[in-house]
Amino acid sequence: MTKQFKKAAIIGVGLIGGSLALTLRQKKLVASITGIGRAGSANLELAKRMGVVDEVSHEISEGVKGADLVIVAVPVRKIASSIIKAISSLTAPCVITDVGSVKKAIILEVERCIPAGIDFVPGHPIAGTEHSGVESAFISLFQNRVCILTPTEKTNKAAVETVKRMWEATGSKVVTMDAAVHDRILSAVSHLPHIIAYTLVNAVADAGDGALDALNYSAGGFRDFTRIASSSPEMWVDICAMNKGNIIEMIGKFEKTLAELKKQLVADDFEGVKTSFEKAKHIRDSITPALKK
Amino acid sequence: MTKQFKKAAIIGVGLIGGSLALTLRQKKLVASITGIGRAGSANLELAKRMGVVDEVSHEISEGVKGADLVIVAVPVRKIASSIIKAISSLTAPCVITDVGSVKKAIILEVERCIPAGIDFVPGHPIAGTEHSGVESAFISLFQNRVCILTPTEKTNKAAVETVKRMWEATGSKVVTMDAAVHDRILSAVSHLPHIIAYTLVNAVADAGDGALDALNYSAGGFRDFTRIASSSPEMWVDICAMNKGNIIEMIGKFEKTLAELKKQLVADDFEGVKTSFEKAKHIRDSITPALKK
Repeated sequence: MTKQFKKAAIIGVGLIGGSLALTLRQKKLVASITGIGRAGSANLELAKRMGVVDEVSHEISEGVKGADLVIVAVPVRKIASSIIKAISSLTAPCVITDVGSVKKAIILEVERCIPAGIDFVPGHPIAGTEHSGVESAFISLFQNRVCILTPTEKTNKAAVETVKRMWEATGSKVVTMDAAVHDRILSAVSHLPHIIAYTLVNAVADAGDGALDALNYSAGGFRDFTRIASSSPEMWVDICAMNKGNIIEMIGKFEKTLAELKKQLVADDFEGVKTSFEKAKHIRDSITPALKK
Repeated sequence: MTKQFKKAAIIGVGLIGGSLALTLRQKKLVASITGIGRAGSANLELAKRMGVVDEVSHEISEGVKGADLVIVAVPVRKIASSIIKAISSLTAPCVITDVGSVKKAIILEVERCIPAGIDFVPGHPIAGTEHSGVESAFISLFQNRVCILTPTEKTNKAAVETVKRMWEATGSKVVTMDAAVHDRILSAVSHLPHIIAYTLVNAVADAGDGALDALNYSAGGFRDFTRIASSSPEMWVDICAMNKGNIIEMIGKFEKTLAELKKQLVADDFEGVKTSFEKAKHIRDSITPALKK
């Protein structure tokens, strides 16, 4: 059986890039995989030793040569520049896709540089763990998860189908939407929660009166709630910078909702507080089944 | 071997009361346990059938007769009135303790009613799950958790020792502190996070543009982060009412911290944002080992 791709080049072989490499190989979608990363990267050497990739390269321009599939899984701030570096070494036909948590800013930078015969399909698999690096990669990472593709009017439809089939092969459900809608939705369900988690930890730590020690008394609720405050600050600053407008708007909505609740508390309007808590519980409980799918 | 207590009366045999009953029995600390709950309570009948308690009673005044240990594990709003109901049926010596998440409001109501020979030791085991009811009770619930006791200057020291030994028998680490300090700490590490979780779910749901559907795209972060928004609204409204001052103050601190972050974002001060995220990650990571103890 002919593989779907001759050569996949994966720029950034970490948790996401590494897990995708494992799946591409298991599903026999690709004849050979080249992993691309910084010179001296222990992660990249490990990817080679683990057999996650066949070849490694420290230069994007070298590593992508001859690839008919390029997957860009570097931190979100470096995605556009990595794609632009790759372009001049690629020969048509080739499909490029990425895994960034922000889509519009990347599309704006990349789309004007794409030559004929090279297709760019912006993507975002909604998957991850609090761990990083290829040693954390595993083959079922994308199973039963959602992968969002955000093609533009310029995106080649056949290339979208190709990337869609690749993600479906990982076990993901693929959804297509406008990049601006993606960025708005993600600012609500992912970016805001991370910002709130960081803010909560800082607010509690600054509360004084031994509140920092007090964290030692915190039960499971606080631990679950703040687990995402252990995420990479670099990554989240980049996301804030690249989705700033939506994030500031969502912080505003959150501030307004919190101010209303505080007002109810101050006014002893506990019926109002209860209605608000009940609404949240109802929403949270109703989304759980979807999350578990 | 003589048991430490002849009769324990547990008012409210749910997750906390039931788990404590299981431990008292396993550790052979008590000769007999009476569970007290509402008439027609399926939970109480189940507690009897499960053998969690020996006897059941639907009247506090009846059920506590002859008890030398009374544990009050009803919802926090009903703790003081339950204790006051019990008092007139108790004969000295008897130790009463409770498990409420707020301490000062309970002490203020209860302490002036306590007669000679009856001792009240306010307590709060920091343990729980998102489940409730005796069917969720289990013997290791308190193991390696912290239990806070908040005796006042009026509290009998021998009674504090008695309650301390009881909680130590469950595997908890017992800490003693002032009730006002307890309420302040808990407003920071537990009450504020619950309010923020409810608020976050409501803010995201109100974001419009299909953001509610968007929750279906949310990954593990959102799920973990908002699990506590599935907690009982009734319970959390009661806690808000009984610890209102501290909670409003903590909301204010949180608002200030969030406003500072928003200001940094608006001003493109991403170094400032990064410093703030790094601080939060450092704090969160440094408390993890204590939580795991």
